[in-house]
Amino acid sequence: MENSNATPLFRKVAVMGAGAVGSFYGAMLARAGHQVTLIGRPAHVQAIQRDGLKLEMGGQMHTVRMDAQSDPAAVAGADLVLCCVKSGDTEAAALQMAPHLGADTLLMSLQNGVDNAATLARHVPCRVVPTVVYVAVALGAPGTVRHFGRGDLAIGALPGGTQSSVPEWPTLQTLVDFFASAQVPVRIVPDVAVELWTKLLVNCAYNAISALAQMPYARLAALADIRGLQQDIVHEVIAVAAASGVSLPLQPSLDAVAKIAAGMPQQLSSTAQDMARRKPSEIDHLNGFIARRGRELGVPTPVNQALHALVKLVESGYEAP
Amino acid sequence: MENSNATPLFRKVAVMGAGAVGSFYGAMLARAGHQVTLIGRPAHVQAIQRDGLKLEMGGQMHTVRMDAQSDPAAVAGADLVLCCVKSGDTEAAALQMAPHLGADTLLMSLQNGVDNAATLARHVPCRVVPTVVYVAVALGAPGTVRHFGRGDLAIGALPGGTQSSVPEWPTLQTLVDFFASAQVPVRIVPDVAVELWTKLLVNCAYNAISALAQMPYARLAALADIRGLQQDIVHEVIAVAAASGVSLPLQPSLDAVAKIAAGMPQQLSSTAQDMARRKPSEIDHLNGFIARRGRELGVPTPVNQALHALVKLVESGYEAP
Repeated sequence: MENSNATPLFRKVAVMGAGAVGSFYGAMLARAGHQVTLIGRPAHVQAIQRDGLKLEMGGQMHTVRMDAQSDPAAVAGADLVLCCVKSGDTEAAALQMAPHLGADTLLMSLQNGVDNAATLARHVPCRVVPTVVYVAVALGAPGTVRHFGRGDLAIGALPGGTQSSVPEWPTLQTLVDFFASAQVPVRIVPDVAVELWTKLLVNCAYNAISALAQMPYARLAALADIRGLQQDIVHEVIAVAAASGVSLPLQPSLDAVAKIAAGMPQQLSSTAQDMARRKPSEIDHLNGFIARRGRELGVPTPVNQALHALVKLVESGYEAP
Repeated sequence: MENSNATPLFRKVAVMGAGAVGSFYGAMLARAGHQVTLIGRPAHVQAIQRDGLKLEMGGQMHTVRMDAQSDPAAVAGADLVLCCVKSGDTEAAALQMAPHLGADTLLMSLQNGVDNAATLARHVPCRVVPTVVYVAVALGAPGTVRHFGRGDLAIGALPGGTQSSVPEWPTLQTLVDFFASAQVPVRIVPDVAVELWTKLLVNCAYNAISALAQMPYARLAALADIRGLQQDIVHEVIAVAAASGVSLPLQPSLDAVAKIAAGMPQQLSSTAQDMARRKPSEIDHLNGFIARRGRELGVPTPVNQALHALVKLVESGYEAP
């Protein structure tokens, strides 16, 4: 599908945080002819500058020539920015980008966690679009990203955002059209907060357990005791969401958890992959977020606390002799 | 110290289950000149028959010549039997021993868990002495046992036992004297159930966590989140104990947990050692026992359930390709 407009919807796109997710979406847009700058770590950036980005997808290796920089100031001039940094880096990224973003820039948060769009909105002068990412990708060697499945996005209005920070419906539809030109399906959802919380809930139910046992999702689902543990996790997340003003329905939440093991039986969680590489994970923003938010709101979350503590314990050994 | 009686207090001792604990106490008694038969697995038994039991203790290797058999019928004729099988094997061991035990035999349960003495008492015709074991030992090569610390025992009356199954005070004092002849300190405690539950509580607070992270106790205690997790575990165990009719005081229980990390900083739990060797652990009788008993009694134990489920998940991988 080609961009049917005479002028492109967005003339310049920047991707802040060229990890697996950022590199994938950046490459998809660049392949469709859009001007995209990836902003990432030096080794990755240098490989892309030298050889283009290598996108392994559908059994083929695609070479995508595109701009890559390591300085966050490279967001300057972009009218669309995809923020793809890990949740722990959101505030720092916002502060680095803010001086270079105009009021008309559109900033999408393609991140896990339910708070990132709000965190960005506190620091940047432009509109922020919370985006739920459904893709299985991983970085390979520098300059290389591998796609395993899906790639669709869901977007909506920033929950609780100020008027100036919330994009209107026509703007969201513009994003749908723009990504459609790059074969990336985007849904506009009425309550993006529910969708972000549901993704968080699913991640809370799988990531730490898969990491601690170093086992794929089907192995978790095979044990009744683990399915029971996941239900305890779901109940705690729903209670914390409710206290945060987001109502998650129980049975669909449980179904969403069950569906993942059936749909991605061989998947190891990102936390499991980080642990296998002795790399700090996003656990502070998964079970750790639920534990922290639960404490703030007076909602007991003993199981999320336990899983968070166990992953932190393993991670405390990475620096050790 | 020598046995001061003209006739020995017990003429023949049998040890049912010559693992690390059974082999250690059997060897201590045999070294003191008592007649002891170890009953264990063929490889261990054959090594002992051939070369004697090798006891590595205090930087020295002691060779202890003693009887060893692999048939449980070898308890026949013993007037003192130490039951040292894992908790999961207690009922089977009781059924195997029962035909060979007389009414005057004294059967000590040197096992973890709070139910083993009662389980034994249901199947054997003799008196049963619940015994709390405080020793750090490990099996080495077949025929070899290594001692790392302590070695004392606590004994008491079987809680809730029938009159015929409960030893009187003079009998308990006889055990103190007998073990004293082998340099094994034995305390008679007024409420052995509290002592067994406290040991269980400490094991619940360390074993699974140390196993999942493969880390020694000091590393666990170094993280505030793990200390918080251990407190959650303690509260759940105390609630289950209370519902079981055993009153555990909170602060001494928390102190007992804290003391272990300070006293044995480099210790890996037995569950951690089993996991490292991909060998099924006693977790069903530690956090798994609390979870099961909690369900029976309507006491919520989400954290013990979670730890039990996680260890079972890891163990479910041992048979896999």
